[in-house]
Amino acid sequence: MSKIKIGLFGFGTVGQGIYEVVRKSKNADAEIVKICVRSLDKPRAIDRRYFTDSASEILENPEINLVVEVIDDAQAAYSIVRSALLKGIPVVSGNKTMLARHLPELIEIQKTHDVALLYDASSCGSIPVIRNLEEYYDNDLLLEVKGILNGSSNYILSRVFDHEESYAGALSQAQALGFAESDPSFDIEGYDSLFKLIIITVHALGTYVAPEEIFTYGIATIHDSDIRYAREKRVKIKLVAQVVKVSEEHFTMFVMPEFVTPDKYIYSVDDEYNGVVIRGECYDRQFMFGKGAGSLPTASSILSDIMARLHDYRYEYKKRNYIQKPDYTTDITLRIYARYSDTDIRGILRFERIREQYFGEESNYLIGDIRLSELLAKREALRGKDVFLANIPQFFLDRDH
Amino acid sequence: MSKIKIGLFGFGTVGQGIYEVVRKSKNADAEIVKICVRSLDKPRAIDRRYFTDSASEILENPEINLVVEVIDDAQAAYSIVRSALLKGIPVVSGNKTMLARHLPELIEIQKTHDVALLYDASSCGSIPVIRNLEEYYDNDLLLEVKGILNGSSNYILSRVFDHEESYAGALSQAQALGFAESDPSFDIEGYDSLFKLIIITVHALGTYVAPEEIFTYGIATIHDSDIRYAREKRVKIKLVAQVVKVSEEHFTMFVMPEFVTPDKYIYSVDDEYNGVVIRGECYDRQFMFGKGAGSLPTASSILSDIMARLHDYRYEYKKRNYIQKPDYTTDITLRIYARYSDTDIRGILRFERIREQYFGEESNYLIGDIRLSELLAKREALRGKDVFLANIPQFFLDRDH
Repeated sequence: MSKIKIGLFGFGTVGQGIYEVVRKSKNADAEIVKICVRSLDKPRAIDRRYFTDSASEILENPEINLVVEVIDDAQAAYSIVRSALLKGIPVVSGNKTMLARHLPELIEIQKTHDVALLYDASSCGSIPVIRNLEEYYDNDLLLEVKGILNGSSNYILSRVFDHEESYAGALSQAQALGFAESDPSFDIEGYDSLFKLIIITVHALGTYVAPEEIFTYGIATIHDSDIRYAREKRVKIKLVAQVVKVSEEHFTMFVMPEFVTPDKYIYSVDDEYNGVVIRGECYDRQFMFGKGAGSLPTASSILSDIMARLHDYRYEYKKRNYIQKPDYTTDITLRIYARYSDTDIRGILRFERIREQYFGEESNYLIGDIRLSELLAKREALRGKDVFLANIPQFFLDRDH
Repeated sequence: MSKIKIGLFGFGTVGQGIYEVVRKSKNADAEIVKICVRSLDKPRAIDRRYFTDSASEILENPEINLVVEVIDDAQAAYSIVRSALLKGIPVVSGNKTMLARHLPELIEIQKTHDVALLYDASSCGSIPVIRNLEEYYDNDLLLEVKGILNGSSNYILSRVFDHEESYAGALSQAQALGFAESDPSFDIEGYDSLFKLIIITVHALGTYVAPEEIFTYGIATIHDSDIRYAREKRVKIKLVAQVVKVSEEHFTMFVMPEFVTPDKYIYSVDDEYNGVVIRGECYDRQFMFGKGAGSLPTASSILSDIMARLHDYRYEYKKRNYIQKPDYTTDITLRIYARYSDTDIRGILRFERIREQYFGEESNYLIGDIRLSELLAKREALRGKDVFLANIPQFFLDRDH
């Protein structure tokens, strides 16, 4: 175990958090040697000699034995991570967008170049989901990983359901507090949850599924009538990501709002917190809960990855080599709530069966059974429409497969 | 990675659970070769050829490369585990009593004989506490591990507080359901929690503290008046084990009933569940929750350890080698509730300050500040007395150290 000498890419809130936790951790034999940033002109809280704006000053420095990448831009992150790995330099990354798009290639490079890439911070910040799926739930008893993976959208829904605020008010409050980006679509359209779910699934079941193959629906179109409806039914609406084995041979996954009843663990995951339920054949349900985002929680998760490198830890992706591995399917039936105004909802979505229908002056809704494949196929047709969809869970689990 | 060939000691509920999960896990390259039991005469659900009553038939079998020990008797378990390790055979054990008493020696043998001993199942069954403390919280940012570690006593308290049953009724119900042993003192006197806490502390802070140095107080003496008092204050009484850093140089630990307010995570850990809160300098609080006991949850945790052995995993006890390691202290002040009848409580316990006192026909209580060292010193003097103690938390954390 030689001392870890870090080349850090990015010095935003997370980057500064990393500097902070590395400094605080007296027993971590790690040191930040150089920090690559976009602009050298910005005033910085620490000595200028740390900074460079040239990636090669890190990638070509033989002293640096770990690259930590926490920049926003997924394309730039990909190029840095790829270059570092190809040079045989281990990398710790928190960039879920980049990972969700490029994991198969990055796994391959890790193998061919015998080099490690760690990214526990990319999913659920300080909750050690990836590491636990990789190491502890390293067997085929796993049935389901389901949770609230995005803190910003959960904060907004939490303000609405627990504090009776309006959606618009909650959203602007989230932005003011820095929980939601100035362009919040990444969070509230479900893509942040989706990318985390893709990474989780690689470690849960050993299979990579590309973003465009997964049905993803966010909370951007939620109306007061949806909130009223949920309140009357004594449920909360949560944005839920899930990967579920539906049979010995198949699993499914999707991101969508869900009506959550009070008896579910995730019902009490409020504010900016994340919560993940891991269900297995023998251990029933386990629940992990913690701060999913923010500078220091993310930084401490990155510190865990840095410490792991001190002991030459790497993901082994063992489940990718399982002989009996379930295949991805969207060929399952969900029961959903669909609220709409003027949209010809039944002209867009082909339901297998309609179970309830309500027409009102303000809005209409129906509850019906629909194939997940149909939802996925019609995702584009739904875009921009004044429609809100929510999953009414447990139905598809009762199906014959 | 060669195939794991298991010699199993014990075929009670957990042993049978292990047989079940190993069989179910199609991708686990593991097989149970031989099972050592006390009596060969008992009828068994599986083929007789698996069984032996001679330990040496496992320990001398060169084909067997892993010993899994799940017998009740701590002394016998110690002798088996020690013998196996001394022969260089890796061991997976779930015996918390044995581990809590012999960890320092067993850690030493692991080092000198270059052999692994895994025991994630010993603490909180299916919740991966040890592994996470060892691997993920492998840094000195950890401030506290606190939780409900014993399912039986929690089941009883849960019946009392959530279902308004009497303590005696809840206890006999727990026994009927198999949650509590026929001699329940191990659970309700707090020793089960204590032993788990000792193991957790080795992996949380790198220090072993012997059972007799730790103040441990259970729920056996709880009265209706205590339950009424807690209900009036809108708190639940839970049996809580905790290890807490009280300063840069010191940590403390104890097991005792606690008044838990509804805003705490462990407030909602009900029935036979376990819940553990891990608090750190940067990640705030993380919460893990799941089934802490039972045949299959424990067995699936043991399966995780077996799978880990497929990849030559071992605990590295990294924190034991930290240069800056906090020392154990009982030199802190707690605020406690002490209910008593005829006992001269102030004759036994020297309080630093009495804050409230109540005298009633049925019972009396006082609330006061007391040194933990004083409680520990008077543990024996309190035994058998009609006294119930409960911690009123957060006080000692506000102290100057």
